[in-house]
Amino acid sequence: MFYILLITMSTGSFAQTASTGEQPGVSPWGATDQIGSLNMMSDGNNLALFSRIATGKVYDLGVEYFIGMPSFTALGDPPYQFWMTHTPHGNLVGDVTHAGDSVNGKVSYTGDALSMYTHTGTHIDALAHFGLHGKIWNGFAADQYLSDRGWKKGGAENIPPIIGRGILIDVAKFKGLDILPANYVITLKDLQDLLKAQHIQIQKGDIVLIRTGLMKYFYTDSQKFTGNGVGISLEALKWLVEEKGVMTLGGDNLALEALPSTDSSNWLPGHTYLLAQKGVMFMELVYLEELSKADVRQFLFIGLPLKLRGASAAPIRPLAIPLGDK
Amino acid sequence: MFYILLITMSTGSFAQTASTGEQPGVSPWGATDQIGSLNMMSDGNNLALFSRIATGKVYDLGVEYFIGMPSFTALGDPPYQFWMTHTPHGNLVGDVTHAGDSVNGKVSYTGDALSMYTHTGTHIDALAHFGLHGKIWNGFAADQYLSDRGWKKGGAENIPPIIGRGILIDVAKFKGLDILPANYVITLKDLQDLLKAQHIQIQKGDIVLIRTGLMKYFYTDSQKFTGNGVGISLEALKWLVEEKGVMTLGGDNLALEALPSTDSSNWLPGHTYLLAQKGVMFMELVYLEELSKADVRQFLFIGLPLKLRGASAAPIRPLAIPLGDK
Amino acid sequence: MFYILLITMSTGSFAQTASTGEQPGVSPWGATDQIGSLNMMSDGNNLALFSRIATGKVYDLGVEYFIGMPSFTALGDPPYQFWMTHTPHGNLVGDVTHAGDSVNGKVSYTGDALSMYTHTGTHIDALAHFGLHGKIWNGFAADQYLSDRGWKKGGAENIPPIIGRGILIDVAKFKGLDILPANYVITLKDLQDLLKAQHIQIQKGDIVLIRTGLMKYFYTDSQKFTGNGVGISLEALKWLVEEKGVMTLGGDNLALEALPSTDSSNWLPGHTYLLAQKGVMFMELVYLEELSKADVRQFLFIGLPLKLRGASAAPIRPLAIPLGDK
Amino acid sequence: MFYILLITMSTGSFAQTASTGEQPGVSPWGATDQIGSLNMMSDGNNLALFSRIATGKVYDLGVEYFIGMPSFTALGDPPYQFWMTHTPHGNLVGDVTHAGDSVNGKVSYTGDALSMYTHTGTHIDALAHFGLHGKIWNGFAADQYLSDRGWKKGGAENIPPIIGRGILIDVAKFKGLDILPANYVITLKDLQDLLKAQHIQIQKGDIVLIRTGLMKYFYTDSQKFTGNGVGISLEALKWLVEEKGVMTLGGDNLALEALPSTDSSNWLPGHTYLLAQKGVMFMELVYLEELSKADVRQFLFIGLPLKLRGASAAPIRPLAIPLGDK
Repeated sequence: MFYILLITMSTGSFAQTASTGEQPGVSPWGATDQIGSLNMMSDGNNLALFSRIATGKVYDLGVEYFIGMPSFTALGDPPYQFWMTHTPHGNLVGDVTHAGDSVNGKVSYTGDALSMYTHTGTHIDALAHFGLHGKIWNGFAADQYLSDRGWKKGGAENIPPIIGRGILIDVAKFKGLDILPANYVITLKDLQDLLKAQHIQIQKGDIVLIRTGLMKYFYTDSQKFTGNGVGISLEALKWLVEEKGVMTLGGDNLALEALPSTDSSNWLPGHTYLLAQKGVMFMELVYLEELSKADVRQFLFIGLPLKLRGASAAPIRPLAIPLGDK
Repeated sequence: MFYILLITMSTGSFAQTASTGEQPGVSPWGATDQIGSLNMMSDGNNLALFSRIATGKVYDLGVEYFIGMPSFTALGDPPYQFWMTHTPHGNLVGDVTHAGDSVNGKVSYTGDALSMYTHTGTHIDALAHFGLHGKIWNGFAADQYLSDRGWKKGGAENIPPIIGRGILIDVAKFKGLDILPANYVITLKDLQDLLKAQHIQIQKGDIVLIRTGLMKYFYTDSQKFTGNGVGISLEALKWLVEEKGVMTLGGDNLALEALPSTDSSNWLPGHTYLLAQKGVMFMELVYLEELSKADVRQFLFIGLPLKLRGASAAPIRPLAIPLGDK
Repeated sequence: MFYILLITMSTGSFAQTASTGEQPGVSPWGATDQIGSLNMMSDGNNLALFSRIATGKVYDLGVEYFIGMPSFTALGDPPYQFWMTHTPHGNLVGDVTHAGDSVNGKVSYTGDALSMYTHTGTHIDALAHFGLHGKIWNGFAADQYLSDRGWKKGGAENIPPIIGRGILIDVAKFKGLDILPANYVITLKDLQDLLKAQHIQIQKGDIVLIRTGLMKYFYTDSQKFTGNGVGISLEALKWLVEEKGVMTLGGDNLALEALPSTDSSNWLPGHTYLLAQKGVMFMELVYLEELSKADVRQFLFIGLPLKLRGASAAPIRPLAIPLGDK
Repeated sequence: MFYILLITMSTGSFAQTASTGEQPGVSPWGATDQIGSLNMMSDGNNLALFSRIATGKVYDLGVEYFIGMPSFTALGDPPYQFWMTHTPHGNLVGDVTHAGDSVNGKVSYTGDALSMYTHTGTHIDALAHFGLHGKIWNGFAADQYLSDRGWKKGGAENIPPIIGRGILIDVAKFKGLDILPANYVITLKDLQDLLKAQHIQIQKGDIVLIRTGLMKYFYTDSQKFTGNGVGISLEALKWLVEEKGVMTLGGDNLALEALPSTDSSNWLPGHTYLLAQKGVMFMELVYLEELSKADVRQFLFIGLPLKLRGASAAPIRPLAIPLGDK
């Protein structure tokens, strides 16, 4: 259970840790910046990528939304709900259109509604999701900017269309596995070995997607999915950001980083590092199975998260289009 | 009020009209088809379009989601709701993480949730949204396929990534207006005059977006927005589908088609025509203001609706990338 | 529109008003008190009332909950929603029980769900609903006690079963009207004239219910209902509390007090007076039509609000049982 | 897990069983009856009970509602959610009142909302909850009466205030236990032994509440609560209804009846028996701990379920007032 993963962490003793160095980052893009590393995008880079598209085939990196889907409910957040508000037969019984049987019987109207935690399904975490000591990336304080309807700074509505070169780091496949062992922590060495073996050069501004294989359970076993803390180590995340200059990242697992945290002062240190300290948004629950099967390793990535005003995350259904060599 | 628009319609007398010819269409793509005209897409066509991208600039065609946004609530559907489930200060008071003050104070966690009618904001109507006489496109019957959790056929999870050549038909601008007159019905002649004057050739498989200018009110006056029935005539829709072979359409208004209906047997005849009879999905509340300002008339359209299982619609944040001439 | 009522108020100029005397009250029942005047109840008083019950007839003072019911949505709160989660036919299509057709066809299971603002339908406002300068009744501060899941002090879960002598003050009927004029403000003199004419003595600890007649529109015209600011004056409220010592109050209107506020520093001065300053909870949207028709003027009142943890209000379906003279 | 309890049942083989005798009951109270055995109530009986009230002390039989509370989510229904829509500090940041800092800072407004499955917390099942072969009690058919917004017959809005003599059957205490053994099935003999030993005579029209002790876990261990199928046997239910003529029943457990079902054709045979065949509504999750501690065995029962239009259940916070002997 993910719940157990968190609890395991949270029952440790939490001595007050020094917060030296763990303050929200100050944006190099200026005091008004709310999108951090996504500022790396440029029209010129986009055009260069478009010109390298090798095939018309596209890969869908988003999961379906359905009642019972795996989601993070360990802290009480609402699981995905979906319900009918209008059905062809129901219209005949209820006649909420006031149109009468003849019209309702002809016009077979279906409507439906949903509710969910914003971090459900394939989604991107906005910079407002995690801060440090009451402030998020670029120093925006909750006291000043967090209303009852979300953040006035750093919310998901600020996220531009995300376009960049995508790189698949298929750790599970590289190790000859369908899925990494339960709670496996992907190390920096794992990444470096793979990149070397596959002759992949990560470039500044790339979008790196890491595959654990966990999606195997997404549609079939919700508890196995949410109970598996497999993910990437903080060390590896730091290397990708600081050494390689990635623009954004994604994983096919629940939290990108490995769970539970081994830092007793922080239950999601990868989240605070990426979002609050580095201004790097990232994606979770990305569906990488088709890319993996087809051995697509570099691609044009296009992601268009819903512009949920003030939100700490937004659903996204990313697209991958294979690129030719350059 | 949109409510008034519907009521105006629905208080007319509804003589039982003959349903000759108004049956759900049978798909030329086979008995299992659930996506209708989106079958027109092909890898080859995609590749041809990618090769024509003229610039790296991209246009965002999606609206923001926020409490109070204009939406169709005339028949009781839920307006967009958004709420905080975790806040940095609230974590200190409630400690739902069981991590204690030190950790909660350091790790400033924000979470949030939402609920909405699926037809809220920029969205695409799935084929299951409207049928005729109890059946949707390709003959799938509600009795057999509509569960309490949506349609087992024709739901939004079936919609593939939508890629095609987009055409902007900027009716408001062509007429020298910010916004068309209230409740204006866009005629076939309006379309034909514009296309001729602007030397635009609609090709089979195109994605046609029609601008009324109504978005002017989207962020500023919800009642003015939802109370304005401006839209396209059924005649014009039929011409676009039957003569021009468009793959899908979109509008910047609430219902694509003009309201209220003048057909006393059908309160949304454009919807039943497109979805049930022709298998043509379409988009509503598409944000076309930037395209209009920049006079972008043809573009690569990319749309990735959320895969809401069984749903009659899905939110979408489309992208437009200008194309060079060919 | 209620919205207009509020807006009318809120567009006034809000000079900072001195807050002298407008601080949360300190409870005479001690520093831990969270129920204010409901402390007036006692087993002895209950027993005395039970012994005076004159008839077995009971009156139901609660309204129905239904989609489209009048509610306070002017500030974006969710209107009442209700939906089916399981239906006999839907179970056959969806088989979420995994029981198969035979069982699902035999066992016709219906389930449903709801969402709502807690101040919907007949309800009681908890002391946490309104405070002054960041603190509620008895000095509990939001900073310290308001979590993301409600108040740790003063929430609705603390409200005991409410039992007391009820008094109907039927202002509309006394004036020979079905319903008071739109936005009529019930004055202290109105109350005093009625009490005198009807020989009613309000006693310390009584529960006073005031009828405007507005319920006439509750089931038939939601806009007329929520657009009518009829209610009681602040002066009259003060007299009831300070001179008469009532335990709790209720009205058949939206806000008990008249709207819009005439105090530019406070949009609901009756609310802050009763809840924050005096620790007097009160009920809104109480259904008084049957009591009025039967001329029941004193009765045993029994009210059992749902114990919603941390909530600022709770639904209640009160009961009135006529009392004999004493 | 309750889920496991259901699954255990539902993975059995479901041979089509003859439905002889298992049809919805026809009401002796006429073709329009929607409340079944609650028709037993009368003003005369009420008055007789009121006159026997022995003490002013009242017992609260309802549980609190809170995020994380035990509820039936095994079939995907929404767990209880609660969220803030307005907070004193949030009003200052967001100013949705448009009243400005001065007013928002003075008037500390809190609002909140909730969503839940209607069968959450202490609640009563309406007759529409379970039927047989597509029809509920008194023959109302889902095809004709079930709209998208609930049942037009047999919904919870029809339930009158419930008043009657209550009897506590404290099985756990009688056996000298805090709580009955996990999944214990209360037999008819258990009931008869207790009634004999305690000299309790059940009378026609009584309200019988059965205590298993399971409430011990309600506030402390949600999984232990929902995973325990302890409850009453079908045989005992039949005896109470057919031999003793009870008006309604309640239990402190999740489903009143024991789980899992041993009838492979019916996963809740007690539900279909009581609701569909006998027209007997009943309560679940009734809080009986205080009654048990005080050894209160007969009492005036007052229950006022929320009038949720069309619903299959409604929350209720019942009251018990001890009765003297007669």
